[in-house]
Amino acid sequence: MGDSQRAREQALTEEVLASFEDTANPRLKFVMQALTRHLHAFLREVRLTEQEWARAIDFLTEAGHITDDKRQEFVLLSDVLGASMQTVAMNNEAGQNATEATVLGPFFTEGSPEIPLGGDISAGAAGQPCWVEGTVTGTDGKPVPGARLEVWECDEDGFYDVQYRDDRVAARGHLFTDDEGGYRFWALTPVPYPIPHDGPVGALLEQAGRPHMRAAHLHFKASAPGKRTLTTHIFVRGDEYLHSDAVFGVRQSLIRDFAVQPPGSPTPEGRDLGDATWASARFDIVLAAHDRP
Amino acid sequence: MGDSQRAREQALTEEVLASFEDTANPRLKFVMQALTRHLHAFLREVRLTEQEWARAIDFLTEAGHITDDKRQEFVLLSDVLGASMQTVAMNNEAGQNATEATVLGPFFTEGSPEIPLGGDISAGAAGQPCWVEGTVTGTDGKPVPGARLEVWECDEDGFYDVQYRDDRVAARGHLFTDDEGGYRFWALTPVPYPIPHDGPVGALLEQAGRPHMRAAHLHFKASAPGKRTLTTHIFVRGDEYLHSDAVFGVRQSLIRDFAVQPPGSPTPEGRDLGDATWASARFDIVLAAHDRP
Repeated sequence: MGDSQRAREQALTEEVLASFEDTANPRLKFVMQALTRHLHAFLREVRLTEQEWARAIDFLTEAGHITDDKRQEFVLLSDVLGASMQTVAMNNEAGQNATEATVLGPFFTEGSPEIPLGGDISAGAAGQPCWVEGTVTGTDGKPVPGARLEVWECDEDGFYDVQYRDDRVAARGHLFTDDEGGYRFWALTPVPYPIPHDGPVGALLEQAGRPHMRAAHLHFKASAPGKRTLTTHIFVRGDEYLHSDAVFGVRQSLIRDFAVQPPGSPTPEGRDLGDATWASARFDIVLAAHDRP
Repeated sequence: MGDSQRAREQALTEEVLASFEDTANPRLKFVMQALTRHLHAFLREVRLTEQEWARAIDFLTEAGHITDDKRQEFVLLSDVLGASMQTVAMNNEAGQNATEATVLGPFFTEGSPEIPLGGDISAGAAGQPCWVEGTVTGTDGKPVPGARLEVWECDEDGFYDVQYRDDRVAARGHLFTDDEGGYRFWALTPVPYPIPHDGPVGALLEQAGRPHMRAAHLHFKASAPGKRTLTTHIFVRGDEYLHSDAVFGVRQSLIRDFAVQPPGSPTPEGRDLGDATWASARFDIVLAAHDRP
């Protein structure tokens, strides 16, 4: 590439940057100018061909057309490029000993049923019963009573309740910590599951030789007055997808032992599980102080 | 931001880069890894908030849902970010004295009607008649007889034929240069027109205080054996949008005088225009040699 070509390309980038000069909102101006710089740097580094440009347009068009109320291919694209997790990481800077955040995912819903301490969130969802317990404290070590915990997960077939078309509410709920900041509930032992992979994002992962699986996990959203709301998961030690989670959500600090108990062993809350095995896991949550006034 | 936070963010970027290591196609691997680097650099530079991330997902979703067979919001987005023009510029490096390329735009169609030299492409489209003539030569100055010229433009209301829902074919056609490489035809004097601006891209331009207009232009696509196919426009000197073309398509070398002729002045081909004014423009096209075997 000659100097004059380089100069033409640079001049074009600067022309686009200048076009955003009159943007009234200073944050929008900063973001759009940064987007322009990084986008043009990408195009010029890879010397994108016109065919590749057309392929990219087709990809985005397909993603747009497969997206509906139940399916979000652009979130999935952001996820598999690590953009979702990077945004979470930037906005939840790990402070002191606070528990790390990870992605919210597309399956959180407002208004989950309240369950009592020691209750069962499964509501008929199939899977191995799993007892989960722990405490919620601040970074100062003090217990946080009355913290609200939202928990949700897929069933043993890898589907969340909202993925069924029958309006069921299962394997999700919320509860509150006791006076010592403790919590406990029955759930299901998490299993790995495929992200939706019949669209353009799935085809991209296929071409990249990347698994389209999420490592097994149980979602938590923890909130309390004066604390920064934490959105996170716990992962299952030994899970085969811990090192290839499709959305880069795994943090080492969030991997937990899910200890499988032999059939017939005494259960918490005296639950009668007959001769079924069950598992148990412990997750002590540390909430950072609220960093906004 | 502390060192440990910076290290966490960098580690995440590297994890995503590593996920593309097994991509079978080396070009795809290179492009996806470069996209990952530039995307993460953008996110980290602007410290994208979770709300902004959600807004970006909504923007792409809206763009996807407004896109159909007749409307392409992702092409429009690429256009207004200068990505389309940058791709054209990179893939049509200006060599020697060859005519510069510019964007194809969304309104080219295959199979336009053939018109004889001196004929009229307007086919009833409204607008000021305009005589266009010139030559096609190689960069060596030699005439190119039999070069195929595709030409198309909007009518005086700013609409291309394909934007009407009645299957009309107007203000487009193709012709061939004569034995001396000359060409000539009647068309319409180009007028500025708005790009579709009732979608998310239009809203973005509005927020950025940017006009949603394209500078007036007449499209050309010129092809001949042994020559690199040229896609370009000519622009109208004095047009008010030459410096704020919404898609950054204007090249100084492509601006032409469109000389308005007084009513009653003798017309080429003896066309009877009554007491209407008409214009004339000249465009000598220089085609580069084919750079691929």
